[in-house]
Amino acid sequence: KTFKIAVIPGDGIGNEVTAEGVKVLDTFAAIKGNIQFEYTYFPWGCEYYLKTGNMMDVNGIEVLKGFDAILLGAVGDPSVADHVSLHGLLLKIRQEFNQYINLRPVKLLPGAPCPLKDKGPEDIDFVVIRENVEGEYSGVGGIRFENRPEEIAIQTAVFTRKNTEKVMDYAFKVAQKRNKFNKVTNVTKSNALNYSMVFWDKIFKEIAANYPEISTETNHVDAVSMYFLQRPESFDVLVASNLFGDIITDLGAALQGGLGFAASGNLNLEKEFPSMFEPVHGSAPDIKGKGMANPIAMVWTVKMMLDFLLEDEDTAAIIEAITQVLLEGKSLTPDLKGSAKTHEVGDAICEKLKGL
Amino acid sequence: KTFKIAVIPGDGIGNEVTAEGVKVLDTFAAIKGNIQFEYTYFPWGCEYYLKTGNMMDVNGIEVLKGFDAILLGAVGDPSVADHVSLHGLLLKIRQEFNQYINLRPVKLLPGAPCPLKDKGPEDIDFVVIRENVEGEYSGVGGIRFENRPEEIAIQTAVFTRKNTEKVMDYAFKVAQKRNKFNKVTNVTKSNALNYSMVFWDKIFKEIAANYPEISTETNHVDAVSMYFLQRPESFDVLVASNLFGDIITDLGAALQGGLGFAASGNLNLEKEFPSMFEPVHGSAPDIKGKGMANPIAMVWTVKMMLDFLLEDEDTAAIIEAITQVLLEGKSLTPDLKGSAKTHEVGDAICEKLKGL
Ligand SMILES: CC(C)[C@H](C(=O)O)[C@@H](O)C(=O)O
Ligand SMILES: CC(C)[C@H](C(=O)O)[C@@H](O)C(=O)O
Repeated sequence: KTFKIAVIPGDGIGNEVTAEGVKVLDTFAAIKGNIQFEYTYFPWGCEYYLKTGNMMDVNGIEVLKGFDAILLGAVGDPSVADHVSLHGLLLKIRQEFNQYINLRPVKLLPGAPCPLKDKGPEDIDFVVIRENVEGEYSGVGGIRFENRPEEIAIQTAVFTRKNTEKVMDYAFKVAQKRNKFNKVTNVTKSNALNYSMVFWDKIFKEIAANYPEISTETNHVDAVSMYFLQRPESFDVLVASNLFGDIITDLGAALQGGLGFAASGNLNLEKEFPSMFEPVHGSAPDIKGKGMANPIAMVWTVKMMLDFLLEDEDTAAIIEAITQVLLEGKSLTPDLKGSAKTHEVGDAICEKLKGL
Repeated sequence: KTFKIAVIPGDGIGNEVTAEGVKVLDTFAAIKGNIQFEYTYFPWGCEYYLKTGNMMDVNGIEVLKGFDAILLGAVGDPSVADHVSLHGLLLKIRQEFNQYINLRPVKLLPGAPCPLKDKGPEDIDFVVIRENVEGEYSGVGGIRFENRPEEIAIQTAVFTRKNTEKVMDYAFKVAQKRNKFNKVTNVTKSNALNYSMVFWDKIFKEIAANYPEISTETNHVDAVSMYFLQRPESFDVLVASNLFGDIITDLGAALQGGLGFAASGNLNLEKEFPSMFEPVHGSAPDIKGKGMANPIAMVWTVKMMLDFLLEDEDTAAIIEAITQVLLEGKSLTPDLKGSAKTHEVGDAICEKLKGL
């Protein structure tokens, strides 16, 4: 079977890490024999914006519809305001394609550096299910009386029952599948956000009732952040709003060795539209073109893409290959105190993969 | 001089820790000789709510106006919904008394347990200035079409120029006074929150222009959370919205040894109304009445109250006394792997204080 992949390398280190992701995809396909990938590259991003005034082709969303999945490198450049570049590409695709789930594994691999004193790979292994198309990121609001003393800014978070139910339902399904505690942690802030999060908790309770075999806990986002440092081993699956998910997954990234390890999938579960896969890291313009970027997050990201596209195929070998490279310690980028180039890490992972 | 203090022990462990705070206040006053405290206790909280239907007296706000400061223990009990108890007391006082600054020191004391591998007391020493009366906590919003498929919840964050300016201005003033980097970190999320945080960044830039000698950096809240784990030593003063400040200060609490060490002041700088001082921890109903609560956060909190009331008085001896107790290791509560009772820790701190 041939999968049509739209590749948007984007800005900064996007190009460099994307090349390694593609390399691993092709290696995986060659090993399996019965699948292949057909890539179409789109030169969208901040450079494109500076030339055309748009972050992507005006028909971009239409064009992307024909693909099985989207692989995104990174978006952002100092020459374009962040909210312009991100709303014009990353957040636009998430919302237009109703990629309502942002799936983010937090797992410390053996050999990856953890900043916590008494925690190891056996302690840090959970998954965050982040709502991905509405909530705090709905983009509703305004600024009035600009530059006058009475100036105000308002930003409205919008949560719909339908979407919230689907996100929570997915969290419980993931908890069923994972072989850990079969537990879902509801990340809330209903003690202060008296409408949105009170509603959020209500839907959580309703959906939980459909899964009596899954245990639950509800914690405020401030407490969850603290518990990530104090007892990360207690988490299995967490479900969080768009903003809270954003914050706790960066924290999760720190626990698993930094943004060099954080992968994500933006999923439309019904496959009405293509899903999008991207490493959590940004475009890191300061190291652009230097071959210093750690491609592991991108490699992990293509593993997630494979899981989504192939469903029943076993892709664990990719994580195993990354782990072998980490433990060997020879092909590591500077963030891991190595001196290997981005493409050397990609090559090393492919070599290990072939040997598995 | 006599200071009139309104004491609201509140719920759970509130009583136990408040008693230790008062003990330290009295010890401090006895040492100084020229100041004293007059306490008036208010039995407000969840028990009061269950009896009267209100978290505080209906004239409570009027009554509190006559005091120099408010000392609060903790609020919250499983028998009352959190958003009811908190909006009825804690958040109400913050907003009614326009305590627009929430000041939270994050400092790892020698002898306190830090969860980070390679960081010590010299690395963890910064201050968070949190906006405290509006923003995400404005309480504006609603839930419509309840329990129907089209149900939605909205929650609107409201930021005013006047208040935002004052909060940021205070952050720069604190950075001037502190002897560290003379640096303010702006905690934002303007890449996604396209009105509120874009506005927030604009005001930050305006105020920064008044303090050319103070250096600045602007980071998104997700990145800041990560940096707290990766390079806490790089922070001096941070300024954050109500919600972001809430999250990062719990994270800060974890860095400094847990909620047993996190103190806060809710300040009305102009002293139009009394300011309120409270430990960051909650009511911890599970250990209520057991004498297990760590009173250090409360003791640190009264130190902050003294700083606010006395201005030019040197209160560093209180932190020194806490540090001595920590280093001695004899009078510590179970969260610090000790077996001392709450009041024994308070006694030990007072003893040390007298010896300084
Ligand atoms: C770049 C930014 C808008 C984005 C987000 O907040 O969603 C990023 O931080 C992420 O986590 O994917
Ligand atoms: C209890 C809660 C409403 C409160 C807050 O979010 O402000 C608390 O977490 C705090 O940090 O003081």
